[in-house]
Amino acid sequence: MRDLSGGGRLLSINTATIKQCPDLREAVAAIGRHGIAGIAPWRDQIAALGLAHSAQLIRDSGLRVTGLCRGGLFTGGGRDGLAASIDENRRALDEAKAIGAACLILVAGGLPPGSRDIEGARELARDGIGRLLEHARSVGVPLAIEPLHPMYAADRACVNTLAQANDLCEALGPGVGVAVDVYHLWWDPALEREIARAGKERILAFHMSDWLVPTTDLLLDRGMMGDGVIDIRRIRGWVEAAGFDGLCEVEIFSQNNWWRRDPTEVLETIIDRGNTVC
Amino acid sequence: MRDLSGGGRLLSINTATIKQCPDLREAVAAIGRHGIAGIAPWRDQIAALGLAHSAQLIRDSGLRVTGLCRGGLFTGGGRDGLAASIDENRRALDEAKAIGAACLILVAGGLPPGSRDIEGARELARDGIGRLLEHARSVGVPLAIEPLHPMYAADRACVNTLAQANDLCEALGPGVGVAVDVYHLWWDPALEREIARAGKERILAFHMSDWLVPTTDLLLDRGMMGDGVIDIRRIRGWVEAAGFDGLCEVEIFSQNNWWRRDPTEVLETIIDRGNTVC
Repeated sequence: MRDLSGGGRLLSINTATIKQCPDLREAVAAIGRHGIAGIAPWRDQIAALGLAHSAQLIRDSGLRVTGLCRGGLFTGGGRDGLAASIDENRRALDEAKAIGAACLILVAGGLPPGSRDIEGARELARDGIGRLLEHARSVGVPLAIEPLHPMYAADRACVNTLAQANDLCEALGPGVGVAVDVYHLWWDPALEREIARAGKERILAFHMSDWLVPTTDLLLDRGMMGDGVIDIRRIRGWVEAAGFDGLCEVEIFSQNNWWRRDPTEVLETIIDRGNTVC
Repeated sequence: MRDLSGGGRLLSINTATIKQCPDLREAVAAIGRHGIAGIAPWRDQIAALGLAHSAQLIRDSGLRVTGLCRGGLFTGGGRDGLAASIDENRRALDEAKAIGAACLILVAGGLPPGSRDIEGARELARDGIGRLLEHARSVGVPLAIEPLHPMYAADRACVNTLAQANDLCEALGPGVGVAVDVYHLWWDPALEREIARAGKERILAFHMSDWLVPTTDLLLDRGMMGDGVIDIRRIRGWVEAAGFDGLCEVEIFSQNNWWRRDPTEVLETIIDRGNTVC
């Protein structure tokens, strides 16, 4: 297992973690200033700055891009909306290619409006990923299916376990892998086994934050590593035992705490916790 | 599949659903007045009225008791606290026997204070259930392990899937079964298979409510059947195909909606939705 101490050399920052930075330029600068090795930006930030400009900015920064957030969301328009969502995902893949992202993060999408058919949503998501795969292979950017916590099954992602994501990868073949996020998966009794099953080739990203007790908001109350109950080091051990050797990405949505602090404080805390807790 | 229309003859009310009723006496009266066939009371209500009195009240009402809420919570005191929690659960079993409950509902308990060891908590819960089993068999009240949604893994229950509960039942033998609650389990891709695996003998209770979008509170924002996204009828179909022929228990924790209404309105709505949605 790797030694994560010694600063940010094995860390990456998902820019949602420092949402208080007004744009991608400031986020890149702050991350670089702290000696952190990687970044995972969001598409709206790239659109705001322009793709060419964003790509240049990131290239110049020397930061590695652990993923582009995000693609997927195949289900929101039902079966009729699938073609449009695939077009949107193709554009996301082109952007991921332009910024040198290691993968495009895919969040499957939840139930179509008015639907109670979770199995149907899962079929739709599988079809969407399948139809996106040719473009992913042609641009050379792999798709990372990120299973989200079951509490998001209705409104964000109908892929809720690593077993499901692994099944999809096996069904779909090369060009698709998984993102392992401790926040979404820590509770799963099958996690160790499914991480081993995913293996080095398939684990495209590893995301860290913590589960707070109590959790006061389903979406925006994630904790800083060490402030919650997840045994992050244990899960990182499983991921690395499977062969993962990428950067560990920190992704914390924290409306009432970390988003209210100065980005410097947030990034210094992340480095400290990354070095001591994770 | 049974026809649930025609009033409350196949329904039971978990008294937490009508928490606004000041005591067990009024809850029993309200449920009986609406022609609903069953009740699932909580231990604090029974303690408030006294066990003998509560048992007499329920017996006189003619209501069937679909379960006593609740036992379990084996993990809160860590390994050192296990003996005390088992004693408490033995008392709960005696109460369940006295009121004629079909089962004692077991919520496993979450992580011990300060712990990040979810596997350790799961071992503790398994040991607790195992050590309680002899008393359950001797009083003739089966234990119903209720897997709770993964969002409760840290603070309420480290048993989070029906697969886990089924594994526990297989390991522990006769006298222990499961409670299938649609709120906790609807998202699980393995649900249909695990319900079939549980089978008639093991499915001791079936609980209904709905998952709201958005859900504004992790604990107290459950929906009335039909107001959310769960395909309740489909899951009831699986449970009945497995052989379950008990009453369908309604358990809705709803701080800002149903707990603020008159119990009559709540119970009338439940009968209506039970007849049309479930």
